[in-house]
Amino acid sequence: MSSQPRIAIDAMGGDEGVRVMMAGTALARRRHEGLRFLLFGDQAQIKAALDHHPNLRAASEIIHSDSVVESTDKPSAALRKKTSSMNMAIAAVKAGDARAAVSAGNTGALMATAKLALRTMPGVDRPALAALLPTLGDNDTIMLDLGANTECDARNLVQFAVMGAAYARIAFDLDRPRVRLMNIGTEEMKGTEEIRDAAAVLRAAESLPLSFEGFIEGNKIGSGEADVIVCDGFSGNVALKTAEGTAKFVTDLLRKAFTSSIRSKLGFLISRPAMHLLRHHLDPNNHNGAVFLGLNGVVVKSHGGANDKGVANAVHVAARLVEEDITRRIAADMAGIENLAAVASKLELSAK
Amino acid sequence: MSSQPRIAIDAMGGDEGVRVMMAGTALARRRHEGLRFLLFGDQAQIKAALDHHPNLRAASEIIHSDSVVESTDKPSAALRKKTSSMNMAIAAVKAGDARAAVSAGNTGALMATAKLALRTMPGVDRPALAALLPTLGDNDTIMLDLGANTECDARNLVQFAVMGAAYARIAFDLDRPRVRLMNIGTEEMKGTEEIRDAAAVLRAAESLPLSFEGFIEGNKIGSGEADVIVCDGFSGNVALKTAEGTAKFVTDLLRKAFTSSIRSKLGFLISRPAMHLLRHHLDPNNHNGAVFLGLNGVVVKSHGGANDKGVANAVHVAARLVEEDITRRIAADMAGIENLAAVASKLELSAK
Repeated sequence: MSSQPRIAIDAMGGDEGVRVMMAGTALARRRHEGLRFLLFGDQAQIKAALDHHPNLRAASEIIHSDSVVESTDKPSAALRKKTSSMNMAIAAVKAGDARAAVSAGNTGALMATAKLALRTMPGVDRPALAALLPTLGDNDTIMLDLGANTECDARNLVQFAVMGAAYARIAFDLDRPRVRLMNIGTEEMKGTEEIRDAAAVLRAAESLPLSFEGFIEGNKIGSGEADVIVCDGFSGNVALKTAEGTAKFVTDLLRKAFTSSIRSKLGFLISRPAMHLLRHHLDPNNHNGAVFLGLNGVVVKSHGGANDKGVANAVHVAARLVEEDITRRIAADMAGIENLAAVASKLELSAK
Repeated sequence: MSSQPRIAIDAMGGDEGVRVMMAGTALARRRHEGLRFLLFGDQAQIKAALDHHPNLRAASEIIHSDSVVESTDKPSAALRKKTSSMNMAIAAVKAGDARAAVSAGNTGALMATAKLALRTMPGVDRPALAALLPTLGDNDTIMLDLGANTECDARNLVQFAVMGAAYARIAFDLDRPRVRLMNIGTEEMKGTEEIRDAAAVLRAAESLPLSFEGFIEGNKIGSGEADVIVCDGFSGNVALKTAEGTAKFVTDLLRKAFTSSIRSKLGFLISRPAMHLLRHHLDPNNHNGAVFLGLNGVVVKSHGGANDKGVANAVHVAARLVEEDITRRIAADMAGIENLAAVASKLELSAK
């Protein structure tokens, strides 16, 4: 039984805490029968929540923790809470007791804790935060970095491309995911030197299991033209939040429009199934689960406001990445960036 | 008659060329009876288009130009086309024959031509591209820079704030517009050093005719919480395009949903007025007209795909900025950044 992969769950994070984390984990377990769980948090609360989920209880071990990382805690304060559910969940991955950790806690704290405990993989300078975004194409798109690194150089961007492609091969079952770099135009001379250098390296690195297809602009994120979109953490975070905000803006306008007259209210009632479809497609719970890529272990961030289904998605993301051993895959791909000397010489070339 | 303000129109730019530029300008003229126009482009084509707009013809002078800046022209190539409609329209502003220029041509070419001919105003290091975006609040929001400067330092961001506020005072008739800096969090320590330094300067500069209200994230662009949103040109361009792309994405989904069954088609027909309202609110033509701020003269970029109404909006933006003398206002405000020595010392402080 102990040979089955285990996932560490921070049961205390998120706006609604233990109940939602347990309900979501129980839901995810149904899709991954072989998984086992380590549940970190207040033992009494977890036990009470598990009363509703006997199947999860049978597959889990509860490990009591006596403190919680608050949403207002700075990363430095969170790091000092060694006996928090978040810290202990990450420590379990470090110790090899679990292969992945899932937390709905404070992103900055989770990132700091995970980086310090798990360290970056050989060949990776900095981890990146990656998430799935909906598109009009056949599959979602993976965007990274979403805020782990405010500033990035060309090496970072190339590494993000390799890590994102490894994730895309697993998430979308593709051999050579289409990778694009976010830029403010599609011509070769557009953007910063870092982006142009990263593009030069990716264009040359033909042995990598990805297909580099040049630049992409913000208006094409949802077009389905890329399986992986690579950007620095600042503009990635701005793009992600702008997309969320705009989707909400448009649906708010729509709601206003639909309640502006009796006639449009009637139309709304009749087309409710259509609206339901729209809401389903845009529901962030269906895309919940951002992954820190590039660490020695899988760490998944669930949105603080996620519901049962959202938490289940985040746990599912962790389970898939564990089952497909993303860490080993990224390590192999990193070795395949022909050799870093060649990359470096290319970068020096354009820096002249 | 020659004392009336004149606006130079590049009649040749844009996807549909002369016809739309003339129809739009004629439309704008109705809102600004006192304005006169200099129309640059192919004389025969302009004359033919003016047959439909006798009122505009009466208020205009045609100046023949024998070349056109193509959408594929690099800025360097565009600069060499001295007798292009774009170059000649900008030159008219430089010579004082017109107070503003409006063009739907290639953005990079327009920016390069305008910068070279008009130069930046005293006190401004770099011009910025600013546009109006729709919000759920009482007025639109002005966002800048949208792509004129790929990388920006703290001084640039502070200057953008001052220029954006001057624009907001005119566009929204406000005394102290609420200015926010785009960031990836709202806490003081978030973001790059450039952003934190700019925030420190703006917080201290109480004598400026603006109210600095801290950081804003991408999901709040349309919330109505800011009259001016300041960002570097890279993330501003990403945010603008992501917002456009997401709005299109959601309305595409909506169209799909509404045509997915007979029932939802019926609902769509009934609620058509509501959908019309939505489309009106999201129509980019209603927000057309991006302004290059910080030059010795007003230059407005109309979207290449704008229709008559869109061009009219761009010309209206130029007219308002001329009527309210934005260039003089910005110059006065720049002098009001207490003194640049104080700003510089603050920046050195945080750079330590």
